[in-house]
Amino acid sequence: MRVLGVDPGMTRCGIGVVDGAPGRPLRLVHVAVVRTPPDAAIGERLVAQADAIGAAIARHRPDVVAVERVFSQHNVRTVMGTAQVAGLAIVAATRAGLPVALHTPSEVKAAVTGSGTADKAQVGAMVTRLLRLAETPRPADAADALALAICHVWRGSAQRRMSDALARVRT
Amino acid sequence: MRVLGVDPGMTRCGIGVVDGAPGRPLRLVHVAVVRTPPDAAIGERLVAQADAIGAAIARHRPDVVAVERVFSQHNVRTVMGTAQVAGLAIVAATRAGLPVALHTPSEVKAAVTGSGTADKAQVGAMVTRLLRLAETPRPADAADALALAICHVWRGSAQRRMSDALARVRT
Repeated sequence: MRVLGVDPGMTRCGIGVVDGAPGRPLRLVHVAVVRTPPDAAIGERLVAQADAIGAAIARHRPDVVAVERVFSQHNVRTVMGTAQVAGLAIVAATRAGLPVALHTPSEVKAAVTGSGTADKAQVGAMVTRLLRLAETPRPADAADALALAICHVWRGSAQRRMSDALARVRT
Repeated sequence: MRVLGVDPGMTRCGIGVVDGAPGRPLRLVHVAVVRTPPDAAIGERLVAQADAIGAAIARHRPDVVAVERVFSQHNVRTVMGTAQVAGLAIVAATRAGLPVALHTPSEVKAAVTGSGTADKAQVGAMVTRLLRLAETPRPADAADALALAICHVWRGSAQRRMSDALARVRT
Protein backbone atom coordinates (compact mmCIF):
# COMPACT_ATOMS: atom_id res chain seq x y z
CA MET A 1 0.00 0.00 0.00
CA ARG A 2 1.27 3.46 -0.90
CA VAL A 3 0.11 6.28 1.38
CA LEU A 4 0.54 10.00 0.78
CA GLY A 5 0.43 11.89 4.09
CA VAL A 6 -0.32 15.62 4.32
CA ASP A 7 0.59 17.70 7.38
CA PRO A 8 -1.44 20.74 6.34
CA GLY A 9 -0.26 24.31 6.82
CA MET A 10 -0.39 27.60 4.97
CA THR A 11 3.24 28.65 5.58
CA ARG A 12 4.66 25.12 5.54
CA CYS A 13 2.79 22.05 4.31
CA GLY A 14 4.46 18.66 4.73
CA ILE A 15 3.92 15.97 2.08
CA GLY A 16 5.29 12.46 2.69
CA VAL A 17 4.83 9.30 0.63
CA VAL A 18 5.50 5.86 2.12
CA ASP A 19 5.16 2.32 0.77
CA GLY A 20 4.38 -0.34 3.33
CA ALA A 21 2.29 -3.14 4.73
CA PRO A 22 1.87 -4.31 8.32
CA GLY A 23 4.78 -6.53 9.43
CA ARG A 24 6.94 -5.55 6.44
CA PRO A 25 9.63 -2.86 6.25
CA LEU A 26 8.46 0.62 5.32
CA ARG A 27 10.00 2.49 2.41
CA LEU A 28 10.35 6.23 1.91
CA VAL A 29 9.13 7.24 -1.56
CA HIS A 30 9.08 11.03 -1.34
CA VAL A 31 9.12 13.83 1.19
CA ALA A 32 8.77 17.59 0.70
CA VAL A 33 7.75 20.73 2.52
CA VAL A 34 5.90 23.30 0.45
CA ARG A 35 6.34 26.88 1.67
CA THR A 36 4.37 30.01 0.85
CA PRO A 37 5.41 33.56 1.83
CA PRO A 38 3.35 34.99 4.73
CA ASP A 39 3.07 38.34 2.92
CA ALA A 40 1.51 36.86 -0.25
CA ALA A 41 -2.24 37.11 -0.91
CA ILE A 42 -4.25 34.31 0.73
CA GLY A 43 -5.58 33.17 -2.66
CA GLU A 44 -2.08 32.77 -4.10
CA ARG A 45 -0.95 30.86 -1.02
CA LEU A 46 -3.90 28.46 -1.06
CA VAL A 47 -3.57 27.86 -4.82
CA ALA A 48 0.17 27.12 -4.40
CA GLN A 49 -0.55 24.53 -1.69
CA ALA A 50 -3.43 22.97 -3.68
CA ASP A 51 -1.24 22.71 -6.81
CA ALA A 52 1.66 21.13 -4.87
CA ILE A 53 -0.61 18.52 -3.28
CA GLY A 54 -2.30 17.79 -6.63
CA ALA A 55 1.09 17.41 -8.33
CA ALA A 56 2.37 15.02 -5.63
CA ILE A 57 -0.76 12.86 -5.99
CA ALA A 58 -0.40 12.78 -9.79
CA ARG A 59 3.30 11.95 -9.61
CA HIS A 60 3.33 9.33 -6.84
CA ARG A 61 -0.11 7.75 -7.44
CA PRO A 62 -0.86 6.73 -3.83
CA ASP A 63 -3.60 4.24 -2.93
CA VAL A 64 -4.90 6.53 -0.21
CA VAL A 65 -4.32 10.07 1.07
CA ALA A 66 -4.02 10.57 4.85
CA VAL A 67 -4.59 14.09 6.19
CA GLU A 68 -4.14 15.36 9.71
CA ARG A 69 -7.48 16.03 11.36
CA VAL A 70 -7.43 19.68 12.41
CA PHE A 71 -9.00 20.83 15.66
CA SER A 72 -9.96 24.40 16.44
CA GLN A 73 -8.38 24.01 19.88
CA HIS A 74 -4.95 24.17 18.19
CA ASN A 75 -3.15 27.45 17.61
CA VAL A 76 -6.07 29.81 17.06
CA ARG A 77 -3.99 32.25 15.02
CA THR A 78 -3.04 29.70 12.35
CA VAL A 79 -5.80 27.10 12.57
CA MET A 80 -7.99 28.61 9.83
CA GLY A 81 -5.20 28.39 7.24
CA THR A 82 -4.38 24.87 8.41
CA ALA A 83 -8.02 23.80 8.08
CA GLN A 84 -8.20 25.36 4.60
CA VAL A 85 -5.11 23.52 3.33
CA ALA A 86 -6.46 20.28 4.83
CA GLY A 87 -9.69 20.89 2.90
CA LEU A 88 -7.74 21.41 -0.33
CA ALA A 89 -5.87 18.12 0.24
CA ILE A 90 -9.18 16.29 0.80
CA VAL A 91 -10.60 17.80 -2.40
CA ALA A 92 -7.46 16.94 -4.42
CA ALA A 93 -7.61 13.30 -3.25
CA THR A 94 -11.35 13.02 -3.90
CA ARG A 95 -11.02 14.53 -7.38
CA ALA A 96 -8.28 11.94 -8.08
CA GLY A 97 -10.73 9.19 -7.07
CA LEU A 98 -8.72 8.26 -3.96
CA PRO A 99 -9.99 7.43 -0.48
CA VAL A 100 -9.19 9.98 2.23
CA ALA A 101 -8.32 9.09 5.82
CA LEU A 102 -8.15 11.58 8.68
CA HIS A 103 -5.97 10.88 11.72
CA THR A 104 -5.61 13.03 14.80
CA PRO A 105 -2.14 14.18 15.96
CA SER A 106 -2.44 11.87 19.01
CA GLU A 107 -3.26 8.87 16.82
CA VAL A 108 -0.20 9.60 14.68
CA LYS A 109 2.11 10.03 17.68
CA ALA A 110 0.76 6.87 19.32
CA ALA A 111 1.20 4.89 16.09
CA VAL A 112 4.88 5.74 15.58
CA THR A 113 6.14 6.23 19.18
CA GLY A 114 3.68 4.29 21.33
CA SER A 115 2.65 7.48 23.13
CA GLY A 116 -0.09 9.91 22.08
CA THR A 117 1.73 12.73 23.87
CA ALA A 118 5.20 12.22 22.33
CA ASP A 119 7.08 15.39 21.36
CA LYS A 120 8.31 16.36 17.88
CA ALA A 121 11.83 15.05 18.55
CA GLN A 122 10.50 11.57 19.43
CA VAL A 123 8.30 11.49 16.34
CA GLY A 124 11.25 12.57 14.17
CA ALA A 125 13.53 9.94 15.72
CA MET A 126 11.01 7.13 15.15
CA VAL A 127 10.27 8.19 11.57
CA THR A 128 14.03 8.14 10.90
CA ARG A 129 14.37 4.66 12.42
CA LEU A 130 11.26 3.15 10.81
CA LEU A 131 12.22 4.38 7.34
CA ARG A 132 15.94 3.58 7.93
CA LEU A 133 17.03 7.10 6.98
CA ALA A 134 20.52 8.53 7.47
CA GLU A 135 19.10 11.63 9.14
CA THR A 136 15.84 13.02 10.49
CA PRO A 137 13.70 14.76 7.87
CA ARG A 138 13.53 18.51 8.56
CA PRO A 139 11.65 20.72 9.19
CA ALA A 140 9.28 18.91 11.56
CA ASP A 141 6.45 19.21 9.01
CA ALA A 142 8.33 16.75 6.77
CA ALA A 143 8.67 14.16 9.55
CA ASP A 144 5.05 14.74 10.60
CA ALA A 145 3.76 14.06 7.07
CA LEU A 146 5.75 10.79 6.97
CA ALA A 147 4.51 9.84 10.45
CA LEU A 148 0.96 10.38 9.22
CA ALA A 149 1.56 8.09 6.24
CA ILE A 150 3.14 5.41 8.48
CA CYS A 151 0.24 5.72 10.91
CA HIS A 152 -2.15 5.03 8.06
CA VAL A 153 -0.20 2.03 6.74
CA TRP A 154 -0.62 0.45 10.15
CA ARG A 155 -3.99 1.72 11.34
CA GLY A 156 -5.66 1.57 7.93
CA SER A 157 -4.62 -2.06 7.56
CA ALA A 158 -5.79 -2.90 11.06
CA GLN A 159 -9.12 -1.21 10.40
CA ARG A 160 -9.49 -3.10 7.13
CA ARG A 161 -8.61 -6.45 8.73
CA MET A 162 -11.14 -5.77 11.46
CA SER A 163 -13.93 -4.80 9.04
CA ASP A 164 -13.06 -7.81 6.83
CA ALA A 165 -13.24 -10.10 9.87
CA LEU A 166 -16.56 -8.60 10.92
CA ALA A 167 -17.89 -9.04 7.39
CA ARG A 168 -16.85 -12.73 7.48
CA VAL A 169 -18.58 -13.22 10.84
CA ARG A 170 -21.78 -11.66 9.50
CA THR A 171 -21.94 -13.76 6.32
CA MET B 1 -19.53 46.38 -10.15
CA ARG B 2 -20.75 42.81 -9.85
CA VAL B 3 -19.95 41.04 -6.57
CA LEU B 4 -20.38 37.35 -5.81
CA GLY B 5 -20.73 36.82 -2.05
CA VAL B 6 -20.10 33.46 -0.38
CA ASP B 7 -21.44 32.64 3.09
CA PRO B 8 -19.36 29.48 3.51
CA GLY B 9 -20.69 26.32 5.11
CA MET B 10 -20.40 22.57 4.65
CA THR B 11 -24.10 21.73 5.15
CA ARG B 12 -25.44 24.97 3.64
CA CYS B 13 -23.35 27.41 1.61
CA GLY B 14 -24.97 30.68 0.54
CA ILE B 15 -24.05 32.21 -2.83
CA GLY B 16 -25.39 35.67 -3.72
CA VAL B 17 -24.61 37.86 -6.73
CA VAL B 18 -25.38 41.59 -6.71
CA ASP B 19 -24.79 44.39 -9.22
CA GLY B 20 -24.26 47.83 -7.74
CA ALA B 21 -22.30 50.99 -7.24
CA PRO B 22 -22.32 53.42 -4.30
CA GLY B 23 -25.28 55.82 -4.45
CA ARG B 24 -27.06 53.76 -7.09
CA PRO B 25 -29.78 51.12 -6.61
CA LEU B 26 -28.58 47.57 -6.06
CA ARG B 27 -29.79 44.72 -8.24
CA LEU B 28 -30.17 41.04 -7.37
CA VAL B 29 -28.55 38.85 -10.05
CA HIS B 30 -28.62 35.41 -8.42
CA VAL B 31 -29.03 33.73 -5.08
CA ALA B 32 -28.73 30.07 -4.09
CA VAL B 33 -28.01 27.86 -1.14
CA VAL B 34 -25.98 24.74 -1.88
CA ARG B 35 -26.65 21.87 0.51
CA THR B 36 -24.68 18.70 1.15
CA PRO B 37 -25.91 15.75 3.23
CA PRO B 38 -24.26 15.54 6.69
CA ASP B 39 -23.86 11.76 6.30
CA ALA B 40 -21.87 11.99 3.01
CA ALA B 41 -18.06 11.61 2.98
CA ILE B 42 -16.22 14.86 3.71
CA GLY B 43 -14.45 14.71 0.32
CA GLU B 44 -17.74 14.45 -1.59
CA ARG B 45 -19.19 17.34 0.41
CA LEU B 46 -16.20 19.62 -0.16
CA VAL B 47 -16.05 18.79 -3.88
CA ALA B 48 -19.80 19.53 -4.22
CA GLN B 49 -19.36 22.96 -2.60
CA ALA B 50 -16.22 23.73 -4.66
CA ASP B 51 -18.01 22.78 -7.88
CA ALA B 52 -21.06 24.89 -7.05
CA ILE B 53 -18.96 27.97 -6.27
CA GLY B 54 -16.86 27.45 -9.41
CA ALA B 55 -20.01 27.09 -11.55
CA ALA B 56 -21.54 30.27 -10.08
CA ILE B 57 -18.34 32.22 -10.83
CA ALA B 58 -18.23 30.88 -14.41
CA ARG B 59 -21.91 31.65 -15.01
CA HIS B 60 -22.20 35.10 -13.42
CA ARG B 61 -18.69 36.44 -14.14
CA PRO B 62 -18.37 38.72 -11.10
CA ASP B 63 -15.69 41.44 -10.85
CA VAL B 64 -14.79 40.34 -7.34
CA VAL B 65 -15.60 37.51 -4.92
CA ALA B 66 -16.37 38.44 -1.29
CA VAL B 67 -16.06 35.68 1.30
CA GLU B 68 -16.98 35.77 4.96
CA ARG B 69 -13.88 35.86 7.15
CA VAL B 70 -14.15 32.85 9.46
CA PHE B 71 -13.04 33.00 13.08
CA SER B 72 -12.27 30.00 15.22
CA GLN B 73 -14.25 31.61 18.05
CA HIS B 74 -17.44 30.75 16.13
CA ASN B 75 -19.23 27.45 16.59
CA VAL B 76 -16.31 25.10 17.31
CA ARG B 77 -18.22 22.07 16.08
CA THR B 78 -18.73 23.41 12.56
CA VAL B 79 -15.94 25.97 12.14
CA MET B 80 -13.50 23.59 10.43
CA GLY B 81 -15.93 22.78 7.62
CA THR B 82 -16.81 26.47 7.30
CA ALA B 83 -13.12 27.41 7.05
CA GLN B 84 -12.56 24.69 4.45
CA VAL B 85 -15.42 25.85 2.21
CA ALA B 86 -14.18 29.46 2.57
CA GLY B 87 -10.75 28.25 1.41
CA LEU B 88 -12.31 26.52 -1.60
CA ALA B 89 -14.16 29.76 -2.52
CA ILE B 90 -10.89 31.73 -2.28
CA VAL B 91 -9.12 29.18 -4.49
CA ALA B 92 -11.98 29.16 -7.06
CA ALA B 93 -11.88 32.98 -7.30
CA THR B 94 -8.09 33.10 -7.54
CA ARG B 95 -8.03 30.41 -10.24
CA ALA B 96 -10.59 32.48 -12.18
CA GLY B 97 -8.22 35.46 -11.95
CA LEU B 98 -10.57 37.43 -9.68
CA PRO B 99 -9.72 39.53 -6.61
CA VAL B 100 -10.91 38.13 -3.28
CA ALA B 101 -12.20 40.27 -0.41
CA LEU B 102 -12.78 39.02 3.12
CA HIS B 103 -15.30 40.74 5.39
CA THR B 104 -16.10 39.86 8.99
CA PRO B 105 -19.70 39.15 10.04
CA SER B 106 -19.72 42.43 12.04
CA GLU B 107 -18.58 44.43 9.01
CA VAL B 108 -21.36 42.88 6.94
CA LYS B 109 -24.04 43.54 9.57
CA ALA B 110 -22.83 47.11 10.08
CA ALA B 111 -22.81 47.74 6.33
CA VAL B 112 -26.41 46.67 5.71
CA THR B 113 -28.10 47.52 9.04
CA GLY B 114 -25.90 50.20 10.62
CA SER B 115 -25.17 47.90 13.60
CA GLY B 116 -22.37 45.33 13.88
CA THR B 117 -24.49 43.33 16.33
CA ALA B 118 -27.71 43.16 14.30
CA ASP B 119 -29.54 39.81 14.33
CA LYS B 120 -30.34 37.59 11.34
CA ALA B 121 -33.90 38.98 11.03
CA GLN B 122 -32.59 42.55 10.73
CA VAL B 123 -30.03 41.52 8.12
CA GLY B 124 -32.71 39.65 6.16
CA ALA B 125 -35.09 42.63 6.34
CA MET B 126 -32.47 45.08 5.07
CA VAL B 127 -31.32 42.79 2.26
CA THR B 128 -34.97 42.50 1.17
CA ARG B 129 -35.41 46.29 1.25
CA LEU B 130 -32.08 47.18 -0.41
CA LEU B 131 -32.64 44.73 -3.28
CA ARG B 132 -36.39 45.62 -3.47
CA LEU B 133 -37.43 41.97 -3.19
CA ALA B 134 -40.97 40.74 -2.65
CA GLU B 135 -39.85 38.51 0.21
CA THR B 136 -36.83 37.78 2.38
CA PRO B 137 -34.43 35.24 0.85
CA ARG B 138 -34.44 32.01 2.88
CA PRO B 139 -32.71 30.26 4.52
CA ALA B 140 -30.60 32.87 6.33
CA ASP B 141 -27.46 31.70 4.43
CA ALA B 142 -29.00 33.12 1.22
CA ALA B 143 -29.63 36.54 2.79
CA ASP B 144 -26.17 36.48 4.43
CA ALA B 145 -24.45 35.84 1.08
CA LEU B 146 -26.34 38.78 -0.47
CA ALA B 147 -25.52 40.99 2.55
CA LEU B 148 -21.84 40.14 2.05
CA ALA B 149 -22.02 41.13 -1.62
CA ILE B 150 -23.80 44.41 -0.74
CA CYS B 151 -21.22 45.10 1.98
CA HIS B 152 -18.49 44.73 -0.59
CA VAL B 153 -20.20 46.97 -3.17
CA TRP B 154 -20.18 49.76 -0.55
CA ARG B 155 -17.00 49.07 1.42
CA GLY B 156 -14.93 48.00 -1.57
CA SER B 157 -15.82 51.22 -3.36
CA ALA B 158 -15.07 53.32 -0.28
CA GLN B 159 -11.72 51.57 0.14
CA ARG B 160 -10.89 52.18 -3.53
CA ARG B 161 -11.86 55.88 -3.34
CA MET B 162 -9.72 56.26 -0.24
CA SER B 163 -6.67 54.58 -1.78
CA ASP B 164 -7.17 56.58 -5.00
CA ALA B 165 -7.31 59.82 -2.96
CA LEU B 166 -4.19 58.84 -1.02
CA ALA B 167 -2.40 58.02 -4.27
CA ARG B 168 -3.32 61.48 -5.63
CA VAL B 169 -2.04 63.19 -2.45
CA ARG B 170 1.27 61.32 -2.73
CA THR B 171 1.90 62.18 -6.40
